[in-house]
Parts: sequence; structure tokens; C-alpha cells
Amino acid sequence: MTHDTESVRDVASRARVASHDLALATRADKDAALHAMADALVAAAPTILEANADDVARAEAAGVAPNIVDRLTLTQERLAAMADGLREVAGLADPVGEVVRGSTLANGLELRQVRVPFGVVGMIYEARPNVTADAAGICLKSGNAVLLRGSSSARSSNAAIVEVLRSALTGVGLPEDAVQLVPGDSHDSVKALMRARGLVDVLIPRGGAGLIRSVVEESTVPVIETGVGNCHVYVDASADIDQALAIVVNAKTHRTSVCNAAESLLVHADIADDFLPRVIDALHEHGVTIHGDERFSEYDGVVEATAADHGTEYLSLDISAAVVADVDGAIDHIRAYSSGHSDAIVANDQTTIRRFVAAVDSAAVLVNASTRFTDGGEFGFGAEIGISTQKLHARGPMGLPEMTSTKYVVIGAGHTR
Amino acid sequence: MTHDTESVRDVASRARVASHDLALATRADKDAALHAMADALVAAAPTILEANADDVARAEAAGVAPNIVDRLTLTQERLAAMADGLREVAGLADPVGEVVRGSTLANGLELRQVRVPFGVVGMIYEARPNVTADAAGICLKSGNAVLLRGSSSARSSNAAIVEVLRSALTGVGLPEDAVQLVPGDSHDSVKALMRARGLVDVLIPRGGAGLIRSVVEESTVPVIETGVGNCHVYVDASADIDQALAIVVNAKTHRTSVCNAAESLLVHADIADDFLPRVIDALHEHGVTIHGDERFSEYDGVVEATAADHGTEYLSLDISAAVVADVDGAIDHIRAYSSGHSDAIVANDQTTIRRFVAAVDSAAVLVNASTRFTDGGEFGFGAEIGISTQKLHARGPMGLPEMTSTKYVVIGAGHTR
Repeated sequence: MTHDTESVRDVASRARVASHDLALATRADKDAALHAMADALVAAAPTILEANADDVARAEAAGVAPNIVDRLTLTQERLAAMADGLREVAGLADPVGEVVRGSTLANGLELRQVRVPFGVVGMIYEARPNVTADAAGICLKSGNAVLLRGSSSARSSNAAIVEVLRSALTGVGLPEDAVQLVPGDSHDSVKALMRARGLVDVLIPRGGAGLIRSVVEESTVPVIETGVGNCHVYVDASADIDQALAIVVNAKTHRTSVCNAAESLLVHADIADDFLPRVIDALHEHGVTIHGDERFSEYDGVVEATAADHGTEYLSLDISAAVVADVDGAIDHIRAYSSGHSDAIVANDQTTIRRFVAAVDSAAVLVNASTRFTDGGEFGFGAEIGISTQKLHARGPMGLPEMTSTKYVVIGAGHTR
Repeated sequence: MTHDTESVRDVASRARVASHDLALATRADKDAALHAMADALVAAAPTILEANADDVARAEAAGVAPNIVDRLTLTQERLAAMADGLREVAGLADPVGEVVRGSTLANGLELRQVRVPFGVVGMIYEARPNVTADAAGICLKSGNAVLLRGSSSARSSNAAIVEVLRSALTGVGLPEDAVQLVPGDSHDSVKALMRARGLVDVLIPRGGAGLIRSVVEESTVPVIETGVGNCHVYVDASADIDQALAIVVNAKTHRTSVCNAAESLLVHADIADDFLPRVIDALHEHGVTIHGDERFSEYDGVVEATAADHGTEYLSLDISAAVVADVDGAIDHIRAYSSGHSDAIVANDQTTIRRFVAAVDSAAVLVNASTRFTDGGEFGFGAEIGISTQKLHARGPMGLPEMTSTKYVVIGAGHTR
């Protein structure tokens, strides 16, 4: 074992011990801790901002792109927002102890399926230091100890934030090891986290497709895949054209860097002559580059799509576009290219809508609504740890209940078989 | 790619295509298929039994243990039971389409979380050919295409059963590729199944601890771990002694080869002088070998436990046994040794029971009831694909709802952000 491997197993073991206390903590205990953590973040602003300035200076010296430096940068306002986030989590219902189902069996046994914490959650994430506080808050409220593995570019900021959160936990009598940084900057420490089966109950990678793929490939700890979105908007022949234009523009341009932004436009052949010029104009007006199929490419300013375009998550003012024969053509295209995040139909024909909704196998299927609505906040979850694009356990936006497992409690009176 | 790898990817791709039709099949379609499969199994009994006789002869010639040969052996009665199993699944509610939660958001968007099939399920299992029909039935009803990888010792039986089931599917107009055998006998074909991420949505290994560990270690496809049970019965000082004796004996001896049998007995120190002689007598009467700690070993006929005993799933008439200081001692012992399947307390003191139930982190925690009750049939699920001992997705007995994922359906009226 390398030194990093040993250190990771050590923090994971301490997290396991802390998780035993957390599982027994009441909602009042946990909410008090969340408020203490929020207050402590604000109180420690000078220390945290100083640590953050080191990270920012290092990133700038290394020539990191300005938009990445911006994501790394903390301000008084961003710290206050992190604190508010923790207070909001305190206001949410405690998922632990919720009875998911229950019954009394014929033999008199009382059966209950009850939500319980996972135990120890590992987070692997990139750049933004606000994730450190967000993840700590959501994990704490759901009764989980958390191991945080941020990017090395944010290491001073993350260390300062975690130190503040840990001392707040101690202050309210909860174990400080409920929130820990994973030690070590090397890939060995990530690897050790991914192989800590039995010590870590679930790993949640948040970041680019490359990070997520490597965690999925290498981890023996169960993984919840998040956030890669190659989202489609299909405009059917039965669509309200004004709605369709507004939804396409919103889904593509409202915020381009997020996983629920549209990356591909599909249009029913019967309305192509009418709709294509209008949607191309609308997208061009918003500065969008259209990577179109043969049909789209007949229009000025449309770039001809390569084979790779339809499968690309641009995260920029680019969109792939194709004309399809009908809803089944759209379904086939989506099956071939979608990442299974969010796919939308704009249509008014009920039979068509039913077919699309049943056949498209994505975390969210939207009807006459922008893909941008796939979001824990929009869904009313109050807090979101990420958006799962896998089918096991949780799919779509993950709130507090998705951060729990369940157990069966069976009460008898001397029952034997 | 080896030939096996190529073949496995080929059957998986065909399963994916079949899963598209299955996802759209109505309950009536699926129930008709299950009845047709049941009838076909009975009608094809001579062919299936002949194929099974080959497997049995091969196993006997190879000197396989009689109890394993028995598990491999099919009879007219066992085939009839397999057919009845399929008919019972037809009688169960269809999990697909169930609305798990739903609401209308403040902006008027209608949000529904709906159960949908996983898509393609891979089953890796040992010996018993009845699993072939059981798994096919449960997967079909839950709308999933299934890839079956039984043990090579049952290959003729499995091939005959699957051929019958496939032609029954064709007969009712469902795709035969909804039920397929994984080709190839080599470990390469298992390996290809485990690496078919994107083609296979979930793998469920059923069998011994070694099989399950290797799947968990090697698979990039998400895995649901099943069935390893090192189950405990803790007898508290507040227990009704007669209940305790009955539960310990039942949990250990009712059926020893199953994962919900008790493998370890813990006794509160305060009642040890009174309870130990009685429980030792009762277990000895049933032919149980007790592997006891120092305290237990003071009694005649108790074998001194090694360090390994407390962590052993015997699956035989053996039990490890220890005296603990109190309920916290029991909790610590269970944390150290339990496989997280089923752990029971026998007690009457409510504070003690609450503490045990909250602190013991197992799929099932039983109070004054035998561990033998952790079972899909006993829980009233009607059908069970296995008992999950992991925390992601499903935990405890898995019925039809556990064989589904969900998706969010979001209905708007031109909604944009």
C-alpha cells in the first residue's frame, strides 16, 4: 500500500465510525449542525478567502482559462450563498426514518421498509469549491459521513472550508469525522477511494465525462453516474410553432454550460419547409452555430454536421440538428445518440406524445417544456447532489431521499417458521 | 475480441432491441406470454427432462456431490412447479407505469416519477436450472429483456428450457430475444457480460460468495449483490427465554443451506448462567455444533471458536456463539462480523429494541422473530429474484418493483425558463 492508499483507508475508517453516530442523530441535532456550519462559514470568511486567493493565484500563474478561474473564485457573496444553502438544507424534511412501505403480514409480523443513511459517501468533483459545502450539508442531513475529493486546483479553499465545517460539527456535539477531505493529491488517493469497498458505501463523481467514465471503469465501490447530458428537443408536425421556437431557443441558450441544455434539435419532415428557416433564424439571432444534416445545410450559415456531432455534448452555443421522418425517426435518433439525461418533445397530438414518452428511455422526458427544467431546484427538491443518468438506485435529479438506502424492520412476538 | 466476447455483445445488442418492444408491452401482453411459457414448459417436459438427464449423467460421472446433483435434477414435479411459478408472476401487479410520486409545480408543470423497465438484465447463477425459468418470468413481467448465464453443469437443461420459452414468446407476438442464453462456457463470456456497459443495464449474480465477489470486482455494468448471509440472533437480558430458544433453534435449523439461516448467536452476559445451558442443550438436540467463545466453551460439547468462526457463513448445522456485555456489545459484534443480511434481537425492553433497530445496519432487522422470515415470499412479494445485501437501489428481498428503474415525465404547455 502506498502512503496515500493507507491515508485514504484511515479517513474512510474514521468516517465509518462517525457514520454510526450520525445514523442515530435526530433531525434537531443535524439541523443545529447545519446552522452552526453556515454561521461558521460566514465568520471564517477572511481565512477562507485568503486560502482561495492562493488557489486563484496558482491557477492564474498556470495559465488556466478565465472561465475556470471564475468558477474557482470565492467572494463574500459566494460564501454567503454557500451558508444560505446549508440553512436551506436545514429547512428540508429529514429523509431518515421515513417509512417507504409497511404492512402487517397474515401471520401477524409487522413489516416496515424504512429509509436509513447509506453510511459513508465519497464525492469526487472538479473545480468549484462551493460543492464542498453543498455536499457536506446534503450528506449530513441525510445522515451520511462524507469523504470529499475535490480537485487539486481548489485544495487550499477546500481545506479551509472543511476545517471550518468540522469545528462547527464539534461545537454541536457531532463527530467532526462526518466531514473529511480525502488526503493526497495523487491519482493514488482517488484510486484508493474507488477501491475502498466495504468502507465507502457509494461514490458520486461530479464533473466532466472523462472523470465520470474513469470512476465507473475503475471503482469497486458502487457508483452513481451523474450529469452528462446530450439532450434533444424533437419538434413534431403537431407542434405549436411559437412554443417550439421558444423551447428550442430556451433549451439551447438559457445557460449553455449545464448538463440539461439542449445539444440536438430534431424536426418532423412535414414541417421542415416552414419551421427550418424560422428556427435557424432564431438560433442564429442568439449566436448559435447549427451543425445540421443535409436538409438543414441547405440554409445559409448552417455548418454541415460530422458523424460525431450528433453524439456531442457541446456545452456551448452549438447545436446539432436533423430532420426525421416522424416520431419514430426521432425515437430511433434519440436511442442512438442520447445520453439518457433529458429529451423533450414539442407536440399537440396525444398519440404521438404517448409514444414518445413511453419509448424514450431517459431520466427525464419533457413534453412541451424546455430541457432546462430537469433540475432538483425546479422539481422542488430543495437541494440537489447531482443528476443521475444511470438506472440503478436514483435516476434524474437526486435530492435528500436519493441519498438514503432502506432497511426492513420486522417486528414479531416470538415468530418462527 | 475473442469469439465469446463478440457473441456476448451480439446477444446483448439483440436483447436491447427486444427491450424496446417489451417496454411498450401491456400487462395483458406480458401475462399472456407468461401463461404461454408455463404451458410450453409442461408440454415440452420430455425434451427438457432428456436434456437434464445428460447434465445429471455428466455431473455424476464427474463425481459431483449428491446434494449438488440433486439441485441440478429436474423432475415432472419440479417442471410443474416452474410452470406454476410463471403463472403466479402473471397474477402479480405490473410494476411498469406505477407513478411513484407526482405533483404539479408552482409554474404549472406536471411532474410524475414513473416506474420503467431497466432494459436488459444479466443473470449469472449456479447449478439450479429452475432459476432459468424464474428469472425469465420475473424479467419479462417487469419489462426487461434477460441474458441468462447459468453454470456449465446445467447447460443442456438451460438450453432446452430457454428454447421452449423463446418459442412461447414468438407464439404470442413478443420478441424471442427477450429471453436469451449467454453463449459460451468460458470465463471469457462471463467477463464479456460484465464489461457490456451500455448494452446491459444491471447484472445480478446469484450463487456463492466467490462468484458474487468476482462479479463485483470485475464488472463495469452496475451490479446488485445478493445473498451472502452471516445472520445473527442476539438474546437480550430482557428476552422471553422460551421465545429466545424457539427463535434460535428455528433460525439455525429450519433450513441450513439458505442465506437467511442464523450463523451466530449472541447472549447478554446477565442471563448467560441461566440461558447458556438451555440453548446449548436445545442446539445439541438438533445436532448443531456450537463454535463458542471462552464463556460458551466452559460447557461440554462446545467447540472453541477460532477468530474466523465469527465471520463464517456456515450454511450447515454449525453456529458461532459469544457472550456480550449488553446490547451495545451485540451491536459492536454485529458491526464487526455481520454480512448485513438479517440480524435479529430477542428482547422485551423497548429502549433496547429501539437502539438495536436503529444501530444495526442490515437489510433486515428482526425483533422477536426468526431470521428465516427475510424472504420475498414471506414478505408477500409473490416473486423474488434474490435478496440484495447492498445499499444501492434495492436492499433485502427483491420483488418486481425492485426490477425497475424510474423516469421523470414532465408535462408543460410551452414552458421555458
